[in-house]
Order: sequence, then structure tokens, then C-alpha cells
Amino acid sequence: MIVDIAPSPALYPYYRQDNDTVIVVDIFRASTTMCRMLHNGATAIIPVAEIEEAKRFKSDGYLVGAERHTRKCDFADFGNSPFDYTPERVAGREVVFTTTNGTMAIREGANAQELLIGSFSNIGALSRYCIEHAERIVVLCAGWNNRINLEDTIFGGALLERLSACGKVTIGSDAARVAQLLWLEAKADPMGFLMESEHYGRLIANGAEGDATYCLSSDTVEIVPIYNRMDKKIRVSR
Amino acid sequence: MIVDIAPSPALYPYYRQDNDTVIVVDIFRASTTMCRMLHNGATAIIPVAEIEEAKRFKSDGYLVGAERHTRKCDFADFGNSPFDYTPERVAGREVVFTTTNGTMAIREGANAQELLIGSFSNIGALSRYCIEHAERIVVLCAGWNNRINLEDTIFGGALLERLSACGKVTIGSDAARVAQLLWLEAKADPMGFLMESEHYGRLIANGAEGDATYCLSSDTVEIVPIYNRMDKKIRVSR
Repeated sequence: MIVDIAPSPALYPYYRQDNDTVIVVDIFRASTTMCRMLHNGATAIIPVAEIEEAKRFKSDGYLVGAERHTRKCDFADFGNSPFDYTPERVAGREVVFTTTNGTMAIREGANAQELLIGSFSNIGALSRYCIEHAERIVVLCAGWNNRINLEDTIFGGALLERLSACGKVTIGSDAARVAQLLWLEAKADPMGFLMESEHYGRLIANGAEGDATYCLSSDTVEIVPIYNRMDKKIRVSR
Repeated sequence: MIVDIAPSPALYPYYRQDNDTVIVVDIFRASTTMCRMLHNGATAIIPVAEIEEAKRFKSDGYLVGAERHTRKCDFADFGNSPFDYTPERVAGREVVFTTTNGTMAIREGANAQELLIGSFSNIGALSRYCIEHAERIVVLCAGWNNRINLEDTIFGGALLERLSACGKVTIGSDAARVAQLLWLEAKADPMGFLMESEHYGRLIANGAEGDATYCLSSDTVEIVPIYNRMDKKIRVSR
């Protein structure tokens, strides 16, 4: 199995190949939050890139999660905190979801043969799924306005480690090697490693530091969210 | 002084600001080779992005260095090895130069307030120049077909270390932090660190591994190449 990493959505065209299994990652916080809402019983996520589209869904009666610049949008039911999406609120419902970077990364990767959502919370389930189904994996990091970030990059290294533990893995590029090296630095204390990162600072400034702990906790859910190209919804593979 | 790094030419638009001092880096080998030819007495470098343009200069009587895919182009006087550009061949001459990634990175950064060429060979001279002249620095990594590479990234970390030794430096982004962390890993043995990198493999496959040693040697020349936006030539600041 080949594992590669596109460190920014803007670089994805230079890393993609046909027949890839693409894993969209936005550790702080969109991909972690999507895993959480499906774990808590949401039947599907409808990712949308634009705020106006999310507002139309809202007026049609959908539950809507919407975040821009680390804050919940006023019109929405939820923001981008994984704790917003309790079983009481989302079980049995479809949730429309738009965030600054995460849903844009999904749009970028939407034509991949298979598109999955990854986070530390589902890293074990994701690894097992990939070992069974994937030949070449590209971790598509959401980054921040197309800039690379530390948290998505180290996730790539963590996934590489999980996959390596289960079989033969070929490192696809220098980008994947960067991720591997940074994860070796980070794994003993990911939170400490990220204290100086750009987005951790943004979370602190917006009172969301509690989310960061959850976003860096491994194996809290056992699901693999899969994007369906036909109806453009994300559902759980069980 | 703020120091930032654009890990790929495709990401430069997301890192650039007005009034930047931009440093184009293509460690294996274009930026090292440019430093070498100016050190050896070439009066100017005329960077061109396209092979056809280089051929026109050649038929007009210019000396031409041209490389694609790690190999010297047949029509050219030189390839991309720093050892091609001896004082006997280049002193007092202008040299037209085109390479797979390096000259394209120059084109990307050509509108910066100031554009410099950086390599390990001139890192000391470059640091001193920046401390005197720059407020915000962006290291523009040439990469490989817009993919990031290890050697350009660690150079960013090495430059950051040199600048930090001389005064207060602010790290501009997670990308700069990645470079800093990787340089800490690499600095004891940069060649060993890069043995597994993508482009080192390409150099070996093309018999150019001897160049790699030179490209990773610090402070072998004392010049700062500066791109002149008016006549689009690169000359030495002495």
C-alpha cells in the first residue's frame, strides 16, 4: 500500500492519482466533528461549501452546522465544536455542515474514487478499513486558507504509523516523510507539540481549547464516514 | 523580523505579503548552481522558464545552462551541476539558465519587492544581507512540480536558525515551524537525513550524487544574488 499526503488542498492536484482512496482531514475541528455527529446517530452529513447554500437548507427545515473563522454562524443550529452534536439533537437526522476549510477540502477531493473522513477519533477504524479496501491512500489536509498546518500533517504521520503496523507501507513522497518525522516528534505529547501552532492559538482566542483535547484523542469512535458521489452525502460504513 | 516559508510555488500566493523579501531556494541544484556561477565571475544570470526561449538565446550566441528532469538538455552549454560553471567558462559572461523547478519559482516570485537567491553555499552572506535589509522574509521553495521537498524545507529551518542567532525572529506560520523542526532533525547530518528523500534518489539515478555533497555545504561563497525586475537579470550584491 502506498501512502501519500497532500499538505494543502491547493497541492492536492500534484499528489492525486486515479483510483486513490482520499482521506479528508481537518483535525481542528471539522473532520473530528463530522465523525462525532455520525457516531451520535446522525443519518447523513450534507457538506456544503457556501454559507448561502447552508442558509437555504436551514429555511427548508434542515439542521445546520456552520462555522467561519472559528465561530458559529448566527443563523445555524451548531458551530464546529464536536460537543455541539449530542445524540439528543442529531440522532436520526441529516445535518448540513459548512466550515472554513474542511468542507472546501471535501469539494476538492469529491471526484476521488473513494473519499473518507479521518480524524484521531476514528483512526483505528479508518486504518482497518484502508487495509481492507485501499491500494493507494492520499491524506488530503484541509489546512488553513490553503496554508499547511501542523495538526493535519501530524495526523498523516499517525495514520502512516497505524497502517505500517499492519503491513507493508510505501511512503509516497517527501510530504509523507515530513508527516512521519513530525509525528515521531509529536506522538509522546501531541497537545504540547501543538501549543505553538497557528490554529491552537485561534482556538484559545475563541474559547475552544477544550475541543482541542477531544480532537487529539484517538479511537473514541468506531466509524468510517464515506462520501457518496451520487447524492453528495456522507454516511457511515458499518 | 518575521520569517515565513512557502513550501511550494503553488502555495506562495497564500504566504506572500506586500514588501516581502523573497528568497528562492532550489537546493538540489538550481539555486546552489546560480550562486556558484556568480561566485565564479558570471556577470549576470538570465533566468528563463521555457526551453524554446533558452534555444533562442543560444542561437543569439549566449552561454546557456538548461536542465530538464535532472539531465542537461542537448543543445545547452551546461546542465544543472554547480561544477559545470568553472571560472574559465563563465567569468565575464552572462549565462541564460533554465531548470525544471528553480526558474519557475523565480517567475512565481518575480513581483516581490526584493527577490534573492538562497542556498546553503551562501547562507551566511544571505543572513547578513537580510538582517540589514529585510523586515519580512518568505523562503519560496522550488519543490518538485509543485510538490514539497525535504531539502528546500530544511534550508528554511537553517536560515531561520542563522537569523535567530543575530536577533529577534518571529516565526510566520506553521510552515516555518515545520521547517524549523525538520532542520533540528537534519542539522547533525543533512546528507544522512536526505538519503531517503525523493530528489536524492533522482540525483543518484542520474550520476549526480557528487553534486549533493556540495549543495549541502554551508558558506562556500560570499555573495547574494539579487533579481532585477527591470531587466529580469540576476546579479551579485557585493
